[in-house]
Amino acid sequence: MSIATALDAIALLLGERLSRSKSELTAHGRSESYFPLTPPDAVAYPESTEEVQALVAICAEHGCPVTGWGAGTSLEGHGLAVRGGVVVDFTRMNKVLEIRPTDMDVTVQPGVTREALNEELRATGLFFPVDPGANASLGGMAMTRASGTTTVRYGTMRDNVLGLQVVLADGRVIRTGTRARKSAAGYDLTALMVGSEGTLGLVTELTLRLYGVPEATSAGICAFPDMGSAVTAVMEVIQMGIPMARIEFVDDATARAFTAYSGMEMAEAPHLLVEFHGSPESVAQDAERFGEIVADHGASPFRWSAREEERRALWALRHNGYYAILAARKGSRAVVTDMCVPISQLARAVEETQADIAASGIPGPILGHVGDGNFHAVLLVDPEQPAELETAKRLSHRMAERALALGGTCTGEHGVGQGKMGFMEAEHGAGWDVMGEIKRALDPQGLMNPGKLVRQG
Amino acid sequence: MSIATALDAIALLLGERLSRSKSELTAHGRSESYFPLTPPDAVAYPESTEEVQALVAICAEHGCPVTGWGAGTSLEGHGLAVRGGVVVDFTRMNKVLEIRPTDMDVTVQPGVTREALNEELRATGLFFPVDPGANASLGGMAMTRASGTTTVRYGTMRDNVLGLQVVLADGRVIRTGTRARKSAAGYDLTALMVGSEGTLGLVTELTLRLYGVPEATSAGICAFPDMGSAVTAVMEVIQMGIPMARIEFVDDATARAFTAYSGMEMAEAPHLLVEFHGSPESVAQDAERFGEIVADHGASPFRWSAREEERRALWALRHNGYYAILAARKGSRAVVTDMCVPISQLARAVEETQADIAASGIPGPILGHVGDGNFHAVLLVDPEQPAELETAKRLSHRMAERALALGGTCTGEHGVGQGKMGFMEAEHGAGWDVMGEIKRALDPQGLMNPGKLVRQG
Repeated sequence: MSIATALDAIALLLGERLSRSKSELTAHGRSESYFPLTPPDAVAYPESTEEVQALVAICAEHGCPVTGWGAGTSLEGHGLAVRGGVVVDFTRMNKVLEIRPTDMDVTVQPGVTREALNEELRATGLFFPVDPGANASLGGMAMTRASGTTTVRYGTMRDNVLGLQVVLADGRVIRTGTRARKSAAGYDLTALMVGSEGTLGLVTELTLRLYGVPEATSAGICAFPDMGSAVTAVMEVIQMGIPMARIEFVDDATARAFTAYSGMEMAEAPHLLVEFHGSPESVAQDAERFGEIVADHGASPFRWSAREEERRALWALRHNGYYAILAARKGSRAVVTDMCVPISQLARAVEETQADIAASGIPGPILGHVGDGNFHAVLLVDPEQPAELETAKRLSHRMAERALALGGTCTGEHGVGQGKMGFMEAEHGAGWDVMGEIKRALDPQGLMNPGKLVRQG
Repeated sequence: MSIATALDAIALLLGERLSRSKSELTAHGRSESYFPLTPPDAVAYPESTEEVQALVAICAEHGCPVTGWGAGTSLEGHGLAVRGGVVVDFTRMNKVLEIRPTDMDVTVQPGVTREALNEELRATGLFFPVDPGANASLGGMAMTRASGTTTVRYGTMRDNVLGLQVVLADGRVIRTGTRARKSAAGYDLTALMVGSEGTLGLVTELTLRLYGVPEATSAGICAFPDMGSAVTAVMEVIQMGIPMARIEFVDDATARAFTAYSGMEMAEAPHLLVEFHGSPESVAQDAERFGEIVADHGASPFRWSAREEERRALWALRHNGYYAILAARKGSRAVVTDMCVPISQLARAVEETQADIAASGIPGPILGHVGDGNFHAVLLVDPEQPAELETAKRLSHRMAERALALGGTCTGEHGVGQGKMGFMEAEHGAGWDVMGEIKRALDPQGLMNPGKLVRQG
């Protein structure tokens, strides 16, 4: 029983599609974040469920760890093979298998990225709405329970994965869910797998919900005197049932960075960016009513448009947010945090985090998804000064503790990976033990993405 | 180790709130459906999580089966103690613990019924939307993953339970989920518990999503030449993004029963009943656009209203549907079936089922939730003729097989209970084994609602 024996057997299976080249190992040992380089022993590029099944069966026989890899855009080091073994890169499993326009669903392989899927859907009038920012793979998005700017209207991956094909740790292949829109037939294995970060199996097929491209879209922006009034206004809009498709906020530091990066003039104040989907009449009405409500909360005049070029300019701001913020400090690297609280606690959480960042001496503009109570501080550290990375980690740590103290979660959308392991016990208590019991039942050897999510024995 | 020893210990714990009276045992041995009388050995009425915890710990020590009981409205015999032991009746745990209007959520005990919750919410401008018809308990609704007429807009219990407190088989108490609107922190234990039918633990607290009572509502009805055109029209409405809050269909036999029961004249044809929630302007526009689309599919003129008395009259029809259908055959009892398919297969599924029922010789009007692809035949059997019950069971069996053949599920919303155990292997394949592995990991003695959901050893 050894990794080496397993890799020899996998090489017989995959030929040149099992790589041990230094450049491949390095590329799959890096993450988008601050985790140290962790090259695996080999990288496999399967092309079918059968190959994944055979590979996992070999790994089970020889005790070789298996870690899935999508587009490598995770921010918490999910794909790093911390116990070595083989990284399974799904790049070659990138086919859209079947689009069913009448049922508004699609079956894809895990390596399809969300942008590639939406490109394929262009002619159908349908789209897949979950948008975490990065052009992540759909397999990776399912495994980290990704969400993003459109979650307030369309939900997270939890809400949009109808079914999965999964290769389990012992090489069995299961199908979870059906193509029916709902079911009451037993444990929700789909939901158990979504967010499991590859620790229970490897996803080889996903069936996803699609939505009609809205006939019309309107979008707009306004500034607020403070976070509290912005959040209160959004809560009122939600209670009124005005259906926002996106409702994003940026703080004053982010507004400053946007102005510097784009040249578009923004007041140095908290802002809301909002989008509505519907008919031409409804998106105009929604925007008007939104404008009236925010005005009651001291906002600047709400500027909105249903014209595509103006909407694009607005969202280009938000989508380039990460780069705009990075440019605010030349030569810096970013540590991106992720906390999520009940909406009533959001203003407090942001303000306490801002004070914490201000006292730390490093910049950390904040932006987030106000409809979900989820936000990120983009902490800018000088890579030449290791002490700053430590400061950023401390700030991130305190944000997670703050989230738990306010009734929220240590990660709204980035996942546990390596970065949030330290908060699982505090967040879940005995529930974390239960996760470990499920893990051991389905992966008794602990070979699927070992070192992640559950308590390590 | 015996049930008798366990009951003696529970009697010490609960005093008179452990009942072994014949009438109590009989009342908790009956179901709403055709299952034989199955009285438990005792019925417990706990008043707190601590009492449930102590009770379950006693049962674990003495090997006594434990089965939860909400309002007793299950249609698949979920609450019947098929291996004896104690039924835990949550009637006394019926408090709304905390309403949080700004976060639009609420924490309740499991014995609160959905109508009682909405009564308590009346002053807040908020409501809980999941509506399975019966005034079920919220604990029971979570455990069976209930849904109903509003699912097309507001989702099922899967989508509306934010978190749970659960007493596990060994007496541990866990909290799943947080009050944040989303989380990526580990396995989704909330989703695993929702729909688990009490086989993994007993729920002692639920935190639920609430929604603003819509400012305006419109509702209407129209007839179609056949099911196919009705379903095609609905698919088009969904693709256009017109947000329906309810979209129900009834077949020609149901329309006939409604006419006879209510006196309101309906053509003997398939009908759609629809409702829109929003602003006064949007619900009028939605109704107008709906009317245009259905007209293109051969519907009768779409009659709609935003006036409360007219809307109430319309939905009274649907809500009394079960009784109207029962009245269509004097002295009959109903066997209610439940199948759910991809929407593209719905017309075919209904038509094949109608043909099957017509050939059987017993009446079986059909109604359902067209937006979810879910429908029910209400099979009317003469209780004096046991052969008719067998015919109804055969029809129900064939509906479940048909659902699977069409890519759907054997139960859209009624759950597995005793009635759908025979379809679990066909629906889930090796996934059913995985459910069994999870069950054994969390309940190795098999004491939580034994005989249900997983393969029986």
